[in-house]
Amino acid sequence: MKNAAAYSDARNKAQELVSKMTVEEAASQLRYDSPAIERLGIPAYNWWNEALHGLARNGITTVFPQAIALAASFDEKLVFEVADITSTETRAKFNVFSKQGDRDIYKGLTMWAPNINIFRDPRWGRGQETYGEDPFLTATLGKAYVHGLQGDEDILKTAACAKHFAVHSGPEGVRHEFNAEADAFDLEDTYLYAFEELVKEADVEGVMGAYNRVNGEPACASDFLMSKLHDWGFAGYFVSDCWAINDFHTHHMVTSNAVESAAMALNAGCDVNCGCCYVNLIAALEQGLTTEEKIREAAVHLFTTRYKLGMLGGSTPYDDIPYTVCACDEHKQKSYEASQKAIVLLENNGILPLDKSKLKTIAVIGPTATSTAVLEGNYNGTSDTYHTFLEGIKDSFDGRVLYSEGCHLFKDRVSVLAQPDDRLSEAYTVASLADVVILCLGLDATIEGEEGDTGNEFAAGDKLDLRLPESQRRLIECVRKTGKPVIAVVAAGSAINTETEFDALIHAWYSGAEGGRALADILFGRISPSAKLPVTFYKDADELPDFTDYSMKGRTYRYIENGSNVLYPFGFGLTYSKVEVTGLTYDSGNAKVSFKNTGSSDTQDVIELYIKPDDERCRENYHLCGFARVDTKAGQSGEVTVKIPDKAFTFVTEQGERVRAGSFKLYASTHQPDELSCKLNGTDFVSIGVNI
Amino acid sequence: MKNAAAYSDARNKAQELVSKMTVEEAASQLRYDSPAIERLGIPAYNWWNEALHGLARNGITTVFPQAIALAASFDEKLVFEVADITSTETRAKFNVFSKQGDRDIYKGLTMWAPNINIFRDPRWGRGQETYGEDPFLTATLGKAYVHGLQGDEDILKTAACAKHFAVHSGPEGVRHEFNAEADAFDLEDTYLYAFEELVKEADVEGVMGAYNRVNGEPACASDFLMSKLHDWGFAGYFVSDCWAINDFHTHHMVTSNAVESAAMALNAGCDVNCGCCYVNLIAALEQGLTTEEKIREAAVHLFTTRYKLGMLGGSTPYDDIPYTVCACDEHKQKSYEASQKAIVLLENNGILPLDKSKLKTIAVIGPTATSTAVLEGNYNGTSDTYHTFLEGIKDSFDGRVLYSEGCHLFKDRVSVLAQPDDRLSEAYTVASLADVVILCLGLDATIEGEEGDTGNEFAAGDKLDLRLPESQRRLIECVRKTGKPVIAVVAAGSAINTETEFDALIHAWYSGAEGGRALADILFGRISPSAKLPVTFYKDADELPDFTDYSMKGRTYRYIENGSNVLYPFGFGLTYSKVEVTGLTYDSGNAKVSFKNTGSSDTQDVIELYIKPDDERCRENYHLCGFARVDTKAGQSGEVTVKIPDKAFTFVTEQGERVRAGSFKLYASTHQPDELSCKLNGTDFVSIGVNI
Repeated sequence: MKNAAAYSDARNKAQELVSKMTVEEAASQLRYDSPAIERLGIPAYNWWNEALHGLARNGITTVFPQAIALAASFDEKLVFEVADITSTETRAKFNVFSKQGDRDIYKGLTMWAPNINIFRDPRWGRGQETYGEDPFLTATLGKAYVHGLQGDEDILKTAACAKHFAVHSGPEGVRHEFNAEADAFDLEDTYLYAFEELVKEADVEGVMGAYNRVNGEPACASDFLMSKLHDWGFAGYFVSDCWAINDFHTHHMVTSNAVESAAMALNAGCDVNCGCCYVNLIAALEQGLTTEEKIREAAVHLFTTRYKLGMLGGSTPYDDIPYTVCACDEHKQKSYEASQKAIVLLENNGILPLDKSKLKTIAVIGPTATSTAVLEGNYNGTSDTYHTFLEGIKDSFDGRVLYSEGCHLFKDRVSVLAQPDDRLSEAYTVASLADVVILCLGLDATIEGEEGDTGNEFAAGDKLDLRLPESQRRLIECVRKTGKPVIAVVAAGSAINTETEFDALIHAWYSGAEGGRALADILFGRISPSAKLPVTFYKDADELPDFTDYSMKGRTYRYIENGSNVLYPFGFGLTYSKVEVTGLTYDSGNAKVSFKNTGSSDTQDVIELYIKPDDERCRENYHLCGFARVDTKAGQSGEVTVKIPDKAFTFVTEQGERVRAGSFKLYASTHQPDELSCKLNGTDFVSIGVNI
Repeated sequence: MKNAAAYSDARNKAQELVSKMTVEEAASQLRYDSPAIERLGIPAYNWWNEALHGLARNGITTVFPQAIALAASFDEKLVFEVADITSTETRAKFNVFSKQGDRDIYKGLTMWAPNINIFRDPRWGRGQETYGEDPFLTATLGKAYVHGLQGDEDILKTAACAKHFAVHSGPEGVRHEFNAEADAFDLEDTYLYAFEELVKEADVEGVMGAYNRVNGEPACASDFLMSKLHDWGFAGYFVSDCWAINDFHTHHMVTSNAVESAAMALNAGCDVNCGCCYVNLIAALEQGLTTEEKIREAAVHLFTTRYKLGMLGGSTPYDDIPYTVCACDEHKQKSYEASQKAIVLLENNGILPLDKSKLKTIAVIGPTATSTAVLEGNYNGTSDTYHTFLEGIKDSFDGRVLYSEGCHLFKDRVSVLAQPDDRLSEAYTVASLADVVILCLGLDATIEGEEGDTGNEFAAGDKLDLRLPESQRRLIECVRKTGKPVIAVVAAGSAINTETEFDALIHAWYSGAEGGRALADILFGRISPSAKLPVTFYKDADELPDFTDYSMKGRTYRYIENGSNVLYPFGFGLTYSKVEVTGLTYDSGNAKVSFKNTGSSDTQDVIELYIKPDDERCRENYHLCGFARVDTKAGQSGEVTVKIPDKAFTFVTEQGERVRAGSFKLYASTHQPDELSCKLNGTDFVSIGVNI
């Protein structure tokens, strides 16, 4: 909503409409499943829709790689395009379904995405929904996603929603009663950074509160957090996380009943209740716990959004988007491009890309090889076509492909009545018969995801550690006994330590419906991998601070102290070539980076810029302040200009104050400017001093 | 085992080996998971393996259409070839896995297939495992399957097992305590027919008892049934159904504890216990409930089978079968051929085959379109490639294919939090946009199958009626509102009444991993359908005798009295052409049938021969006594000779005596010789009198 007049017009209309409602009617509109008010011509509306990586849970749509995988692309334009397609498909479905009177959940225009929480701890099951551990990367991609969802017209294409505000990143098992404690430094330097950016710079239309308390206040009724939104000029709607307001009296114990909880949330500024607690608003009003003004003001916020979306009469620029755009070939091609750019190559002893002419038989082994769940991740749509890893490989290779499931994803046997490890003899056999093994490992949303969604009884969707499940560790051991070359492909939404040296190691994330095609194209060298880790891969979670400790000290590349616990650094990822930064200059907000592809393959790569102030008070090691995806031909040089945001020239004091510094060190490379990254990547970095 | 000397040799070796065992050792070998006896060089062996339609539950194998679908092919040679491939893959896996010491369940050579129970009532969930309602068809295909599994060498390729002996066909919910009552007539004319044939003519190596009682005796310890096997000269092994012996004291209440149950089964002649009851055999011996001789004789039976299989030393003709045959292209091609020959065309107003050149957009709608479960049926293997209905159609059509799940298979909504019918707006939309709708309906093994296996809480795997689930009926209603032409494809293992007139109706069964390819080739006319129903499709199950009534009176085409309840008759199925029988002669056991393809397409079809004695005492309407699949070119005539078995010239008296008659009426057509079949098929039949 770039146009202030359009906003003002929407708000005026909303005020007028709400003024015609009884207070009971106004209160009814604050439920996520708000009923029709027929006498005022207001149709029913369900505020709940999901779109983390494509429109979700609304039939057939384009299924893009999971958010964490999109982050691995380090490609702002791509993320915008994914969101743009998502909102196009949302409008396409909305156009026809609403005409048929279908105004059900997941079919509206208020998308509860993106998830811009910081992936602070690799054990968090919902970390896959985020853009990783870095606030700058998160904010940059989050803004691009909001832009794609909301569009550039006066009427919002769809309404994005930044969630979960704030200081929310597990553990899932205690999220309903947990009090996240964050000091002023971490709030400013980490937890609020992306939310502020999305509100101020992307005009995100919605903000969703978190389940947990933040420094004692429930996030969905936190005066502190609401005051931040106010300071940032937030003019959209605030929604509770689903059934979070119930937690006030059932888990957080900050109120004694649902009436009090409803009042508390409303009074704090929560406009719409995902859940059912707001059925008590009129009782709260009668008990003097809230006011009619509060109810009406929340309703005005909500109807302002609905007017901004053009949902209450008149035409919109989106009315002619035809249904046939949904999951069309062009959109699938973009999903394929996203998969290509998301899959990270972590190890390669030279076996990749595979030379088909030298291969007669490939063994594809493992529990994720034929899985569509590992393409989907969570909060996913449904595709009419899935390219699994196995299908991708079979479609790309004319020789014999032998397949074995190898083991269950996490159970100790595939057949209930069998002995443990009942597929290992098959796995061993097909490995023995092959020239090379593609070992497909990993997790899926049944064991890595959200509390309540998953079958992971031990940790409510979180990981207990960074290891693969025991069943898969045994499979690895078995396959390695054959002595055959092994390329491991790990599908997971988070850091995994395979504890094994493979000939090559690929981290595929949850790579979207076209994931298998992209994987095969990388394996066989039709394209070069070019993605980078948006999170640090640690060796051992036990070396990290406690999962419930929200201090950032010792966490993520920005604050890590124990470098020996890093397996693969944030920002790391190999290509089939070698791109070296050869020069760096800075002038008036722009860094100019020259680079050369000194390898023998064409490839894309990511130029990463990090910055650190020359000020002892700065507690960060350094931080990402710019990045650019570049396309390079073997042997050729290039140059790219990267905008460095003004905020990069600030840092946060221990007291949480953001202050400017005068001089900085600016680093450029295709990785982090540290020893491990240089060693893994085989290239150095270039750095310069910058005075502001 | 064609060679009596080889049998005798195996039995001698078995006697010698068992004589070296202690009685405890001998008793241990009667468990399905029999342990090694190291001092005698006997490895562990698990008797339990499954192979109804391809090797099951043992990793990647060729997944053929379900047994009921194979029956619909009316193709004895095909059924033999399917079983031959199944035993080839079983040996291939056994060769490598046993060398690796993997002697687990589903990895042995004793296959508990085929299921030759008579599909007496269309509500039975396990009817899909059988060859349908007709004893002659069941026996003919059953023998072919046994032949394919057991091979033609002196050493058995694998050991087949005829199950479940006998009088077993639901209801699943009461199978553990049920007493099936069958009179002498039905036993001879229906329930024992195929078992007798498989023992006498196919030398089936195993027989498995049923869960239920038969006329008061538990089938796994029935003196009556065992005496029949003895009379037929059965020389193989007898196995209990799994945990059936436990039912003796827990459900049938014919014994008071597990020791008595074990003794009862062993004494009756049950050699191997699927379950754990035989751990009590030594206690039974000590209590004087059985004898050492009984234990040793059972062990001799089992080791005779193991010697026949060449499992105890020496080489076999199968040792060189390489692992790479498993799920190889050639085997998949046979599965594809089976799918083609199994899919039945029930209605066609001329819309089929589809003319691609006139179609821009096809809508594929319905909960079975992307399902691999409807390709698998139950007791299935796992394929490395599945061609779903949607994939088959997409791969065969260059225009736009729009897909919607339409509804859940049986639940009232797809998304838990949504309103009911939450995919109907999508289904309506894609149907509206299409030139033609392929509506993919049906069931799968989660709601049609075995007690204990299924999620069908109402009927333990059985169907309550012949209707599609409510969710699908609502989908049909929604799609029909668009007025678009609709081709319905029903995947189910049994009769379904869709209660709707479609432009075309296809019954696809559970059509194997290549099912979608075969379906698409039929839809687009690359091949003509040619399968026939191996069961009567009724309009209403309520018009049938009670499900628990095992009298055949009023059941199946042989005894049906209420013809108005028949929707599609046994033996019925359309092609894209019209094949008419033009002449019939009989001489010395052979019928010669001439026919003409008077339509405009090349097609295969099935010549069906039925017989009825000129004797008032015969209670059958008539019965199938021969069939032949023929290949015909449009406009051309042909001739086929069909062997009529000697038994066809007998009938069974009310007292259960099989007697010869002197004169018969013999009918030939591509369907049953009744009015409804003639009308549906658009062709008549030819009949002659035969005097013997």
